[in-house]
Parts: sequence; C-alpha cells; structure tokens
Amino acid sequence: MNGGMGEASYANNSLLQRKVILMTKPIVEAAVTALFSTTATNFPASLAIADLGCSTGRNALFAVSEIISIMIDLCKATKQELPEFQVFLNDLPGNDFNTIFSSFLPRFQEKLSEQMKSKNGAGVMLPCFFSGVPGSFYGRLFPRESLHLIHSSYSLMWLSQVPGGLEGNKSNIYMARSSPPKVLRAYYEQFQRDFSTFLECRGQELVVGGRMVLTLLGRKSDDPSSKECCYIWELLAIALNEMVSEVYQNLILEYLNSRVHIRIKSKLIFLITSSESCSIVP
Amino acid sequence: MNGGMGEASYANNSLLQRKVILMTKPIVEAAVTALFSTTATNFPASLAIADLGCSTGRNALFAVSEIISIMIDLCKATKQELPEFQVFLNDLPGNDFNTIFSSFLPRFQEKLSEQMKSKNGAGVMLPCFFSGVPGSFYGRLFPRESLHLIHSSYSLMWLSQVPGGLEGNKSNIYMARSSPPKVLRAYYEQFQRDFSTFLECRGQELVVGGRMVLTLLGRKSDDPSSKECCYIWELLAIALNEMVSEVYQNLILEYLNSRVHIRIKSKLIFLITSSESCSIVP
Repeated sequence: MNGGMGEASYANNSLLQRKVILMTKPIVEAAVTALFSTTATNFPASLAIADLGCSTGRNALFAVSEIISIMIDLCKATKQELPEFQVFLNDLPGNDFNTIFSSFLPRFQEKLSEQMKSKNGAGVMLPCFFSGVPGSFYGRLFPRESLHLIHSSYSLMWLSQVPGGLEGNKSNIYMARSSPPKVLRAYYEQFQRDFSTFLECRGQELVVGGRMVLTLLGRKSDDPSSKECCYIWELLAIALNEMVSEVYQNLILEYLNSRVHIRIKSKLIFLITSSESCSIVP
Repeated sequence: MNGGMGEASYANNSLLQRKVILMTKPIVEAAVTALFSTTATNFPASLAIADLGCSTGRNALFAVSEIISIMIDLCKATKQELPEFQVFLNDLPGNDFNTIFSSFLPRFQEKLSEQMKSKNGAGVMLPCFFSGVPGSFYGRLFPRESLHLIHSSYSLMWLSQVPGGLEGNKSNIYMARSSPPKVLRAYYEQFQRDFSTFLECRGQELVVGGRMVLTLLGRKSDDPSSKECCYIWELLAIALNEMVSEVYQNLILEYLNSRVHIRIKSKLIFLITSSESCSIVP
C-alpha cells in the first residue's frame, strides 16, 4: 500500500475498507463476547489482540479501536476488572509503520484516554501497549498460544505469491472470462495452500478458546471469472494493454499478474472445516 | 536519530555504539546464564526479550543477535529444547522502524537461519518473532510480567525532557564549568526522576527472576561538569555560539539545551539500590 499521507496514499484512499470494518462490528462483538464467556473463570490479566494486514493510515487502528471499545463496555457490564491490552499491528515489512507510529498512534492513544475518562471516570487509566509486527501472515508471526483475539479485514484475498502456471493468461492480469481452466485452477490451488497455512499458523498462535474474525472479499457466483469480482481486473488489463507498447506488452502483463484471489463462501467454509487448527463458531 | 541509509544516517555513523555492545558481551552472557539457572525447573516455551532504545541501522539488531546466539549455545550446552523467541525492538515513535523492518530484519533473519543450520543441523528452525514497539521507556511499554530479558545500550543517558530551571545556563547547551549549581542540580534531579520511573516500569514488566542489562555513558569524576563527559557539549556550544548570529543566539541556545545526562557510577548504584522494583546482581 502507498505509505505517507499524500493524495495517493492508502491513508487517504481507504474509505471502503473502513466501511467494511464498521459493517462487521456485530460479528466482532459476538466474538469478543464469546471470548469473555470462555475465559470468565480464569480472566487473563493481559489480553493480546492482533490485527493482521493492518495497512497504514487511520484504518490501521480503526478495527483495534472498535475491539477495545467493545471490551471496555463488556468489562463494565460484567463488573470485570479491566485487563491490560497488548495490541499487535501486522503487515508486510514494506508497510509504512513509521506513519502509524509517529502520526496515527499518538492521536489514537489520546482519544482512547479521553474515551476511558468519559466512560470510567478521570482517574482510570487504560494500559494499552502497541507493537508493529512486520511479516507475512502466511507464516508464523507470534509465539505459541500467545493471542486471545485475531482480526483481519480485507487482507486475506492477497495471496502469498502469484500462482505458477499462468503462462496461457497473457492478455489478462487475473482470472477473466478468457482465462483457460488451468489458470482458474492455479489461482484456487494457491489460495487453498495459502489459506491452509494461515489457519495452521493462527491455530498455533491462539490460546485455547481464542477467537478469530476474518473478513474477506467474496463472490456469490459459482463462476470464478464472474463479473462481480473479476471485472475490475479485466478493465485494468484493457487499460494496461492500451497503455503499454506492443513491444513490451507481454513481458509487463506477465509480471503484473495479480496476487489477489476472491472466492465463494462455500469453498471457504470447506477449507476451514477441513482444517484441524480452527473451527467456525456460529 | 537520523533515519534511512544515507551518509549522515545513524545506520552509517554508529560504530562506537556497536563497539560498546561488543564490550558488554560478557555481562550479557552472565545475565542470560543467570536467567537460565533461575528458570531451569520451569523453562518457558517462549522467551521474551526487549531491546530498549534500539535505534535504527545494523545496531538495532546487533545486541539481540548476540543475546540469541548466547541463548542457542546455552540451550545446546544444557541439552535444553530451544524456546521460541519473541523480540521487541523499542525506540521513540519517530525512530525509523521502516528501515529496520524492510532492510535490516530480512537480512538478519536469513543470517540467523544460516547460523542455526550450521550449529544445529539443516532441519532445525529457530522460531524468532520480531516486533517494533514505539514509545518512551520512561513509561510502561509492555504488559505485566511479560519479559524475560531487557537490554538497553547507550540510551539511558537521554532524559525524558530538558530539565526545568536552566535559565542561567544560556551560553551552554549542557552542564559546563560555567554552569551555576542550580543547573547541575536540575540535570541530576531530572535523571533521578526518569531513572526511578524507568526502574519502576521495568520492574512491573519483568517476570520474577527476569534480568536486565543496562549500559550507560558514565564518568569517573565526582565533578558533574568534568571534561570527561561535558567537553564535547562545551565544544558544540562554542561552535553554535559562533554560528548563530547575535540576535537569535539566546533564543536558539535555550532551545538547544540538551536532554543528555552522564552520571557517576556511585550515584547510579544508589538509585538502583533505593528502588523497590529492581536489584543489582553481582
């Protein structure tokens, strides 16, 4: 994602992703409530939360702010002493962590402190400790059984790499109506491998009874090259085809084949239920 | 510190700090050995290490690399199964974490992996997870009892703020021979407050039996304005006095009063022993 705070930065072009986080708030609430009920008899002194693929900008802390706010309210409602919070913000090493740390985090901490005072009185402090974790979530990022809640929004459609076997897809940059079946299969198999690895890693990192809320871009159609998910990439491919001169066309488009993958809900549920690491909680 | 990788960057101007880390290796070795003997009966599955004031550049990972290397050797010598390592790199929010994460960390991880293979065989992996922690170490940075080893080199001479009451020190930018006694007192009292806060916070964050290795710039002389620590600042003040025009002189020099403080060993020992949070281990 584009770092910094400029016009073309992710920080100033991520309203859609923010709306998605807002839309999923009831699901996060349910997950946190379930976590609290699981840990009720042995409530931890410190709760570890990870946001995977946090990106940069305001959104990097938006999901976390919602989660903490839910937790504060739940503690108050159940007369539970507030735990300390340890928040891990993860993204790839090239993410602009500097802008999060120096610009957004101080403002967020100030806001959090005011929120606490208005909810729990002037003397109550909220011990909340932040870390940036650089690395791919298609590998281990945290010690075993160290996290209570994992959140990831609009990130898991990015694959770990462009799949192999896309040679016949040269005029496209993703799955398209004109893509041969082997290209569709290559994308699905790459996602299958990546998502299984993701579940296995998170299964090791979550405490027993820990919860995970994942929001992914999906499609309703059975057709993996349906317009609802691929059209934007087809348009982009057409634009690129027109922009790039004949000479370099094939070379550049091959390089540009996308790492994104958008899948159907039924296939996702199948992958999660066949994983030994995690299960779906209704 | 100057970020990036340019000629004037800290990354390319921190050989002295690197030498200091090398010089203190025997002390770190002793601390790690003591930590291992304390935890021998209940060896943790995951060891949490924090480097406070890590800065940027190669040095940001140098101390940690030494610590991990000592731990690997100790595990091998005691036939102890290798724990997972969680490494926290801390510095102020303005530190260049991006350069650490995108340039130095990948190389470091590659080197660490090679080192593991050569020491323990090709199949042995070292689970080592890195985080950047933005914030002042003159406040809490981590949850209670979450760290096993804290390291800090050449950082604790930086105060949390320029002390108040330096009005009579206008021609200097730190303690100097011409500084009035109240300026010397102001620096000492600021250090006293900061260091006590530091010890209190770390005392809460360390597990019982945890260890801390702190390397500070010090002086042998009883005189706080002795040449051995203040001369460089006096020279800098002279240079600044000559550079700055008469009109702005007072204004700028007042602004530039340094946040550094260099203290005598006996006073440091007194502050640690009078703290309830930590003790000195011979």
